[in-house]
Formats: sequence, C-alpha cells, structure tokens
Amino acid sequence: MVELEVPFEEFVNTLRELGKDKYHTNHPFHKLMIEGKLTPGQIRAWVINRFYYQRILPMKDAAIISNCPFIEVRRVWIKRIINHDSWGIEMWIRLGEAMGLEREQITQGYVLPSVKFAVDTYLNLCKSRSWIFGVATTLTELFAPQAIEERIVALKDKYPWIRSEGFEYFEWRLSEKGIREDLSGTLDILRKYANTLEARRECIKALSFKLDLLWSLLDAVYYEYVLKNDGKTPYD
Amino acid sequence: MVELEVPFEEFVNTLRELGKDKYHTNHPFHKLMIEGKLTPGQIRAWVINRFYYQRILPMKDAAIISNCPFIEVRRVWIKRIINHDSWGIEMWIRLGEAMGLEREQITQGYVLPSVKFAVDTYLNLCKSRSWIFGVATTLTELFAPQAIEERIVALKDKYPWIRSEGFEYFEWRLSEKGIREDLSGTLDILRKYANTLEARRECIKALSFKLDLLWSLLDAVYYEYVLKNDGKTPYD
Repeated sequence: MVELEVPFEEFVNTLRELGKDKYHTNHPFHKLMIEGKLTPGQIRAWVINRFYYQRILPMKDAAIISNCPFIEVRRVWIKRIINHDSWGIEMWIRLGEAMGLEREQITQGYVLPSVKFAVDTYLNLCKSRSWIFGVATTLTELFAPQAIEERIVALKDKYPWIRSEGFEYFEWRLSEKGIREDLSGTLDILRKYANTLEARRECIKALSFKLDLLWSLLDAVYYEYVLKNDGKTPYD
Repeated sequence: MVELEVPFEEFVNTLRELGKDKYHTNHPFHKLMIEGKLTPGQIRAWVINRFYYQRILPMKDAAIISNCPFIEVRRVWIKRIINHDSWGIEMWIRLGEAMGLEREQITQGYVLPSVKFAVDTYLNLCKSRSWIFGVATTLTELFAPQAIEERIVALKDKYPWIRSEGFEYFEWRLSEKGIREDLSGTLDILRKYANTLEARRECIKALSFKLDLLWSLLDAVYYEYVLKNDGKTPYD
C-alpha cells in the first residue's frame, strides 16, 4: 500500500465534488418539498419510507464496529449507536406523529420494496466490506446540514399543518452534538486511517454508494406517490 | 414455530447441566493453575493467548447488535461494548503487566494458531448466525463467577510474584456491575425472545460452542506450554 501525497484536506475536497450533483438535495422530490408543493400524503409517505432507513442506522453502525479492530475508533463510533437507540429513532417516530400518523403506521407501515432493497444493501455492505468503507458512507454528512436546514425551514413555513414538536430530530441533527460532532469524528478517523490509495478508493466508493442510496430512496417515493395516480397516496 | 411449555427457569437448568462437565474449570490447565503448579512463564502464556479472546469481545458484541432489530435488546447489549472498550481490555493488559510482561508482549505477542482459529470462529459466528445465538454464547456466565473466584484466590495465594494491582479485571467481573449484571440482562432477553423450540435449540448450540471454545483455548496453551518442551516457555 502506498502512502499518499495528496493532503487529506484536498482529498476531502474531491469528496465534496462528488456530492455536488449527486446529493439528494438535487432530487425533484426534495425540490418539491422545499417549494411547498407536496401534499400531506406525500410528505407522510416520505417519513414512513425513510423510517426504514432510520431504523437500521444503529445496526449498520454496530456492523462497522464489529469489523473494526481499533479501540479508539470504536470509542468514537459507538456514540452513533447510543444516539439513535436513545432518542434518534424515537424522534423520527415523533416527526411522523406530528404529521398526524399513528405510531404503528410509521413503525410497521408499508415500505416500498426498492426502499427496502436499498437499505438492506446498506446494512449488508457495512457487514461485509471494510470498516473504512462503513465509516466513509457517513460522509454524506458533508452535505447534510444544508439539506436539513432547507428541509426544516420549508416544513415549518410551507406545511403549517405539521405540529412543531415534530422537528426535534432535525434540530438535534443541526445542533453541536449532531451532524457537526459526528462528521468531525469521521474526518479525524479517516485522516489517520485512510492514508493509503486503497483506503481512499474505498472512501470514494462508499460515498458514491451512499449518494445513490439516498437518491434512490427519494426516487422510490417520487415515482410511487408523486408521478403515479395523479399524486394520490394512502396517507392523504 | 412452537410456543414452549417448559418454563424458562427449567430450560436454564438444562443449560446449567451442559456446563457441569464441559466448562473449562474442569480443564487440567485450570486445575494446575488453582493448585499453584504453573510456572510464571505458563501463566504469562495463558494471559497473552487469552488476550486474543478479550480483544475481540467488543467486536462480537457489536456483531450481535448489528443483527438485532430490537431496540430494547440493543440498549442492554451495548453496555458490554462500552465496558470492554472503556476499561475491560485495558484491565486485561494490566493483569499481564502485573505479571512482568511488557504491554507490547500482550497486545502484539505471539498467539497460538488454534487460539486464533477458535476466537475468529466466535466472531464469525456472531456475525453470520442469529442474534439469539450470539446472546446465548454468553451463557457461560452462568458458570463464570465460580471460575473467577477460584482463579483470583489461587493467583493471589500461590503466585505471590504477581503484583496485586493486576487483579482489577477479575474484581470488576465479580462485582455487582460485572458478570451478575450482564447475566441478568441476558436471561431477561432470552426469557422474552427465546420462547420457541427453534430459539431454544439455538441457545443450546450457542452454549455448547462457547464451552468448546473456552476449553480449546486452554487446550492450546496446555499442549504448547505444559506438555511440550518439559513445560519451558518463552516467557519464563
């Protein structure tokens, strides 16, 4: 394995470039959301399907830890499991409830097959590939704060029927203890351990995969609940 | 799957029977240890080889969590990762240091191949089999307090060259927050989730495997460092 001459911060710029077009803020469903053009049923469909993603997060983080022989990395990474299992998952359920959904509609509702396949693939990749790959999939957090800010402003402004206690999840993710802390931990880890060409290629593959995953979640909801049936949903 | 008529506490008695002969307190190496008949080199060889087992514990616990869709189970199980990564692994290193080993001899020393194979198999099984299997492998904790008590008494009494600050690991395992708390969490989980014939068979397989694993760790050390070369070791 070759030590790299490209400084880490330059490498991060390459990663940022990757997300410029492919991050899901460019997706038509996200654009409709921030323009206030989605129906209540469409927003609810998004929350229900995205929950399938939210609920596996602690399991994929545990998969990363199960592959990682470095105690100092595991000590950082475990916070993600604790956060999601202590309140993150619960807060997403409350977001759905603030939109008038029943708890069971969120936790046991119908999930589009392509959402399941994409999310299950994510968990399987974190189990079967290197821990560096798993860690690097979270690099979409480079772009997440802007996405969440756009989302929270739009949801509050343009969808006044959503009760305000629903926004705790996004508020947590935007706080100091949220994405910022998570991302800074990830960058510290990759600065130290992704110092070979092979490891950096792994990071690029991981980020590309994750961008595709988030995009395809929106695709699934967009095709099924916006393009089909004149945008009617079972949650209207 | 069939609901079981055998009450859980009776099932636990079946599990206890399993360990009666097969738990590693019956192993000749353990017996030599408590009789004070091991040389310093033989005890050190045990600590070094056993470290290979200690060091993967948080990874196997993460593997169990990565397979477990139940948030209430994950919330209990994560404590094991935190305990080992916060101090458990470090305390085992200190045990070795209290026996006069250098830190690197413990963390990077030679490990017998059959110890590696056994321990790597443990991690792989926790990744590839059901989370119930993984949880049930810890049922050797049914027998562990007695083993550790015997060990700590013997090590203090019969091996006075071991410095006393080395025993923190065993003292932690014997405390309220140690094995007792871990085991009671495991039994609560299995009482609730291992309520089918299939799940209970999984528990029996898991415990049998784990008994074999612990036994084979002692076999490896016993063959190499007691039976061979008149009991001479590189750590004398």
